[in-house]
Amino acid sequence: MSKLSTEQTGNLVTDIVAGYRENPPENVLDSASIPNRETIIQIIFILRELLFPEYFGQRQLIYTTIEYHVGNLLIEIHEKLYEQIAYALHNRAHKTTVSIDGIIYTFLSKIAYLRKMIEMDVQAAFDGDPAAADKDEIIFSYPGVFAIFVYRVAHELQLLSVPLIPRIMTEYAHSVTGIDIHPGATIGKYFFIDHGTGVVIGETTTIGNNVKIYQGVTLGALSTRAVQNLRGVKRHPTIEDDVTIYSGTSILGGETVIGKSVVIGSNVFLTKSVPAGTKVSIKTPDLVFKGEDNQYMDLDI
Amino acid sequence: MSKLSTEQTGNLVTDIVAGYRENPPENVLDSASIPNRETIIQIIFILRELLFPEYFGQRQLIYTTIEYHVGNLLIEIHEKLYEQIAYALHNRAHKTTVSIDGIIYTFLSKIAYLRKMIEMDVQAAFDGDPAAADKDEIIFSYPGVFAIFVYRVAHELQLLSVPLIPRIMTEYAHSVTGIDIHPGATIGKYFFIDHGTGVVIGETTTIGNNVKIYQGVTLGALSTRAVQNLRGVKRHPTIEDDVTIYSGTSILGGETVIGKSVVIGSNVFLTKSVPAGTKVSIKTPDLVFKGEDNQYMDLDI
Amino acid sequence: MSKLSTEQTGNLVTDIVAGYRENPPENVLDSASIPNRETIIQIIFILRELLFPEYFGQRQLIYTTIEYHVGNLLIEIHEKLYEQIAYALHNRAHKTTVSIDGIIYTFLSKIAYLRKMIEMDVQAAFDGDPAAADKDEIIFSYPGVFAIFVYRVAHELQLLSVPLIPRIMTEYAHSVTGIDIHPGATIGKYFFIDHGTGVVIGETTTIGNNVKIYQGVTLGALSTRAVQNLRGVKRHPTIEDDVTIYSGTSILGGETVIGKSVVIGSNVFLTKSVPAGTKVSIKTPDLVFKGEDNQYMDLDI
Repeated sequence: MSKLSTEQTGNLVTDIVAGYRENPPENVLDSASIPNRETIIQIIFILRELLFPEYFGQRQLIYTTIEYHVGNLLIEIHEKLYEQIAYALHNRAHKTTVSIDGIIYTFLSKIAYLRKMIEMDVQAAFDGDPAAADKDEIIFSYPGVFAIFVYRVAHELQLLSVPLIPRIMTEYAHSVTGIDIHPGATIGKYFFIDHGTGVVIGETTTIGNNVKIYQGVTLGALSTRAVQNLRGVKRHPTIEDDVTIYSGTSILGGETVIGKSVVIGSNVFLTKSVPAGTKVSIKTPDLVFKGEDNQYMDLDI
Repeated sequence: MSKLSTEQTGNLVTDIVAGYRENPPENVLDSASIPNRETIIQIIFILRELLFPEYFGQRQLIYTTIEYHVGNLLIEIHEKLYEQIAYALHNRAHKTTVSIDGIIYTFLSKIAYLRKMIEMDVQAAFDGDPAAADKDEIIFSYPGVFAIFVYRVAHELQLLSVPLIPRIMTEYAHSVTGIDIHPGATIGKYFFIDHGTGVVIGETTTIGNNVKIYQGVTLGALSTRAVQNLRGVKRHPTIEDDVTIYSGTSILGGETVIGKSVVIGSNVFLTKSVPAGTKVSIKTPDLVFKGEDNQYMDLDI
Repeated sequence: MSKLSTEQTGNLVTDIVAGYRENPPENVLDSASIPNRETIIQIIFILRELLFPEYFGQRQLIYTTIEYHVGNLLIEIHEKLYEQIAYALHNRAHKTTVSIDGIIYTFLSKIAYLRKMIEMDVQAAFDGDPAAADKDEIIFSYPGVFAIFVYRVAHELQLLSVPLIPRIMTEYAHSVTGIDIHPGATIGKYFFIDHGTGVVIGETTTIGNNVKIYQGVTLGALSTRAVQNLRGVKRHPTIEDDVTIYSGTSILGGETVIGKSVVIGSNVFLTKSVPAGTKVSIKTPDLVFKGEDNQYMDLDI
């Protein structure tokens, strides 16, 4: 096996280190104190075990010593979360004004609530998909359920003003499922995303109860290139209860409200509000048919 | 590092365990006997090595002691599959009526057949993509080939009525590739999916030989909210031999048949059958052009 | 636990090994010398640490012994890359005509340049997304930034005519992000992909500086089934500086040029050039509205 020569290594090191110094990152005060994505992903999976010990993790312990097992998981999650939140806050230089212990205790107090919420999401997936053989199949394999679970966990941390970590969590779910839900979005109970690849739900979206959406749906912002001055403004739509949105549809804008029980077909592009109870579809684009001789055909389909 | 107080831990444990008991899952008879997603993913990769030992796994053993190596892989896969199928069947409470050994032996008897099928899929990818430098590149890096390989393996298990595991396998491939193929679908030989992100192929889809589809294609069901009573009904389309379907097109419905050698362009939305030999495209939506002064322009493009 | 019988194992081994011999792969001269995807993924992450040691890897070492740390990373990356490039070249049987050491030294000489390029991409993401709280969030969690980083690294190897490895790298990023950028594409500085799932950028695409694209955008080839004779031909579009392309739009064809500062709306399908400064959108398809009584409604939205 060949090697770099000492001179080559020296030249490369000098060049690369000069590059670091020329353009250092802005906020790195203490280089060891940066949130660690791998640890944050571990936290997601410990939370999943804490929420559903029947399905994930050290299942054999459940019915004998469940209290001790839960206690151990809580201690483990507290330790990892404390470290990551401290790093994230340090990075934002407002560490001194908040109690990390208070944040974590409040967050962990939501576990029983999150379990109920996610059980309703699983039920919605079962009710909504004829290919679902039973709820086990859903809890094990449905990407929509996984993405919503991670969103619900991350959203609670977002509500507690934890920086960085909620977004790292939901981007992990995005990478695994193709479903991109911003942790700032507000989503009601009994929510179902089928297939899901390509779904985008923006930061200031509000979604009611019993809403069902399909792959490729975007709940997004109207676009502009001058964007940093829009931070914090409501830029994404409001979806009321019992709405269904089929695949490939985009609904954009912070003033757009989709009323209760609306059904929106595939490939619709909407930037205006729709009143409750309406069914919306596109007038399907005309199709063009040609035969094998490349001549136009008049097919009535 | 801070810690949860004993009292806090006690409160959280009580609260969380009460949540478990309030709403236990339906089917968990024996909490240790649930299929394990990680083991099922390992099975996928052992199968890949068994199918293509030239490319994956302990390659140096191939030409000296190949029989022993294959024997060892078979023993390993039998052990893992036996355990996972037992868990999956137990969970469905019909364990006693089937022979797991028989299922596995029948499944493993398909390895040589699966190798031939997947070699034809690799050939289809090579023939179909001008960016493919050679077949090595395809077998190493093409997501379409990986998704079809996992589908073909999972489909054989599905045909043997193994619950849960086939879907966990194809959802793993979905998570890695963005391509969502239900293990119940029926797909002929020499099948190619290019790019692939966003592809959905539903449970009762039938696809012939030499079919080529692109990213964002949905072969789906017509929609309804009352869905659990549709289980087992043919809800997804039939695609005959030699069909090409370009990106973003949706074809829906169990009675929709796309005839032999049909070519369907991008972004078509079809819920009706198309006779053999037809070329289908949308009448492209009119474009609107404005100049830098925001005035409408009459561009002939 | 049950087992395969000796006879069953023997039958399966005979059958499977016969399948290997019946249809051996074309290029496997020496079965041990094939690039290893896992090692290539490790190389990606070592490169990321080399590019941004402030954020990734052994961060505590940065400000004390940075030169030694960089030297060690260079030695590690050289060793792994040498092995993988040797395998990849061997596989293509043109090993003798190139200097692997020369390739690697040239590649590593680009690290400082790549750092500057990727810092501009991070800045573009920050400037382009109102949901971005700060650059840390972007560098940690944005899939677009990850996909562009992997593309930029792979593209340098592609320019040095390294086979297989660049495509394995970008397909890894595709699998993680849903963004499919061919390593042969040419992309200018300050490039931003928002959300990104479903983006496809073909092999011969050329993109200028300060371009921004959204989820579901395809920069693709016009299609044909006779494709292997198109290898090396310019088949994908040219996008000039300062262009914005919104979600779901497809731009196809090697002669299609999108001029400077063009803005293209969502869901456009373009196979022709557009002059500089133009704004392009589709004439939105007419929508159809029905009330709860299933009667058509005349809504002015």
